[in-house]
Amino acid sequence: KNILIVPGDGIGQEVTEVGKKVLDKIAEKFGHEFTYDEALIGHVAIEATGNPLPDETLAKMKNSDAVLFGAVGHPKYDNDPSAKVRPEQGLLKMRKELGLYANLRPIKLFDELLDASSIKPEILKGADILFFRELTGDIYFGEKGRKDDGDSAYDVAAYSKFEVERIARKAFEAARTRRKKLCSVDKANVLETSRLWREVVQAVAKDYPDVEVEYQFVDAIAMLLIKDPKKFDVIVTANLFGDILTDEASQIAGSMGMLASASVGDGTGVYEPIHGSAHDITGKGVANPMASVLSAALLLDISFGLKEESNAVISAVDAVLKAGFRTGDIADASTPKDKILGTAAIGKEI
Amino acid sequence: KNILIVPGDGIGQEVTEVGKKVLDKIAEKFGHEFTYDEALIGHVAIEATGNPLPDETLAKMKNSDAVLFGAVGHPKYDNDPSAKVRPEQGLLKMRKELGLYANLRPIKLFDELLDASSIKPEILKGADILFFRELTGDIYFGEKGRKDDGDSAYDVAAYSKFEVERIARKAFEAARTRRKKLCSVDKANVLETSRLWREVVQAVAKDYPDVEVEYQFVDAIAMLLIKDPKKFDVIVTANLFGDILTDEASQIAGSMGMLASASVGDGTGVYEPIHGSAHDITGKGVANPMASVLSAALLLDISFGLKEESNAVISAVDAVLKAGFRTGDIADASTPKDKILGTAAIGKEI
Ligand SMILES: CC(C)[C@H](C(=O)O)[C@@H](O)C(=O)O
Ligand SMILES: CC(C)[C@H](C(=O)O)[C@@H](O)C(=O)O
Repeated sequence: KNILIVPGDGIGQEVTEVGKKVLDKIAEKFGHEFTYDEALIGHVAIEATGNPLPDETLAKMKNSDAVLFGAVGHPKYDNDPSAKVRPEQGLLKMRKELGLYANLRPIKLFDELLDASSIKPEILKGADILFFRELTGDIYFGEKGRKDDGDSAYDVAAYSKFEVERIARKAFEAARTRRKKLCSVDKANVLETSRLWREVVQAVAKDYPDVEVEYQFVDAIAMLLIKDPKKFDVIVTANLFGDILTDEASQIAGSMGMLASASVGDGTGVYEPIHGSAHDITGKGVANPMASVLSAALLLDISFGLKEESNAVISAVDAVLKAGFRTGDIADASTPKDKILGTAAIGKEI
Repeated sequence: KNILIVPGDGIGQEVTEVGKKVLDKIAEKFGHEFTYDEALIGHVAIEATGNPLPDETLAKMKNSDAVLFGAVGHPKYDNDPSAKVRPEQGLLKMRKELGLYANLRPIKLFDELLDASSIKPEILKGADILFFRELTGDIYFGEKGRKDDGDSAYDVAAYSKFEVERIARKAFEAARTRRKKLCSVDKANVLETSRLWREVVQAVAKDYPDVEVEYQFVDAIAMLLIKDPKKFDVIVTANLFGDILTDEASQIAGSMGMLASASVGDGTGVYEPIHGSAHDITGKGVANPMASVLSAALLLDISFGLKEESNAVISAVDAVLKAGFRTGDIADASTPKDKILGTAAIGKEI
């Protein structure tokens, strides 16, 4: 199996290094042979080639069995809204070109982190949510631009029935293997794309009579998700709503530093933390690498079908937490100073 | 002063009745004369006239000094994505016709409710946020429709510099009277409307050098808002992001049943709870009327300039909470049964 490592920007570099080492260890322990290559994306790719997704990177992605991805983004572009070339263009183009229409984001709290969240432990205990975020449509990929000499701007959100149906089916299939509950999120009281979304989900639901379906408006669920997270099993939603809700849901898992994601679809799968490039802590060696490690676990499971190996990675993270080790983001007042480790050190423990 | 009461749908009826009684009491205590009229909107207006915002309602709104509003919505339309006439159209048309471009949503926890939230009390204590949600632009009001024989749908998000500037200025002015911090929320790494938004806020900021400005992406703040709500003072954002984030932020105030809002702009101001029509509890007499009562307080302050009267209303709510009275949504295991009151009874206490 050959795995492409694409660290990208900021802490993407540091955390992906740990993710790769964990894959290496798995290969060694279970007798697999993984070969690796590396490629550039985002700000580092712009600096090196002028292009946030160089052709070479895309070709390597298409030819690999799976991609372990870091993050993209740089404050330089955020502070300059008029920049024409931006790191995020590389990420979005990759998603489109690889046909990664389904982004899976499992939200599950490790028992040891019950107190790391801003949400009360009794609200969190037992919460286990699997998000399906649509990843190649919506307002991310519609036409956008300026009018009236630059005095006004527009972005077009669009969905076709086909796009909604394929992600809905994936979500229903997953619900079948879990608690058989699916919540579809939209803003059908205002948006036409949401009305189409709801129509399609209603139609697909007929093929899954064993799955209990619920519809929520995005504003309502933004509240319900933190009021009563245990209520939810599988949640399926559009690209933009999924972006917002999964970041919010990171508080259910204690910290954004714990959340992994899998982007799958027509070809090579891409595995990445849901956290971003975090330039405020870049290079300090303090970033939590667990989201990258857990992304590697998803890679083993989903792209390689190596369930046992995947579980071994998750157990390793669990064991390290049980042993009391923490990175800064998941430490609290009760954590002994000598148990708070940096990126590489906690990676070694895992 | 003449006040138009527009209860709308579901629990809108029950809670607005309490809001009106509180206004009556204030008039009596402080020697004002308030006259009232009533009008229909939403589902009840569709049933009566076929139109979610009858001309008569709109005319009455324009001729009144302020509007006390309930809620709109009905499950009937939510379950039928193809319905052509919908209650929400009445609400959106009202916002547009009255030029209500600024929606103020203060998020502040009454001390007594520190334990009512799913968020830890130590995270919440002292949080005090004022949202400015843009209310007459964005994807709510752009062109929308179907293509390809109905197989695909689109919604256009749009903003002009003028629209962003007027709400930004209102938010900066408010920040000046508070802790002098402003956070502007967008998705400038993906959306052109957000890049325009950020450009305009950056330009307006130059006129307010005494206000500390911060920019956050909507996904990041969806997380930060519940991780560390005390970090924020004034938050200004676009229509759709504001819809989602303020519902989420209701957990900071203990319950959605506590949150009031003021919609202001070119003409008559409209005051309404941020909760919806809540058909699951409609007619049971258990809805929390405090959001409507606190909306009446905003009405007195903002539309009538009656600061003392407004504070009297807020103090009354506070006193009722201090006396231990609760509605179901803000009660917890420690609330004695006889202190849990229905809508009318707690209204009487207030
Ligand atoms: C970096 C950004 C464009 C991206 C997104 O909005 O999809 C990120 O927030 C994510 O969730 O992967
Ligand atoms: C009912 C709905 C159209 C409305 C909105 O999205 O603006 C509501 O959620 C609100 O926040 O006032």
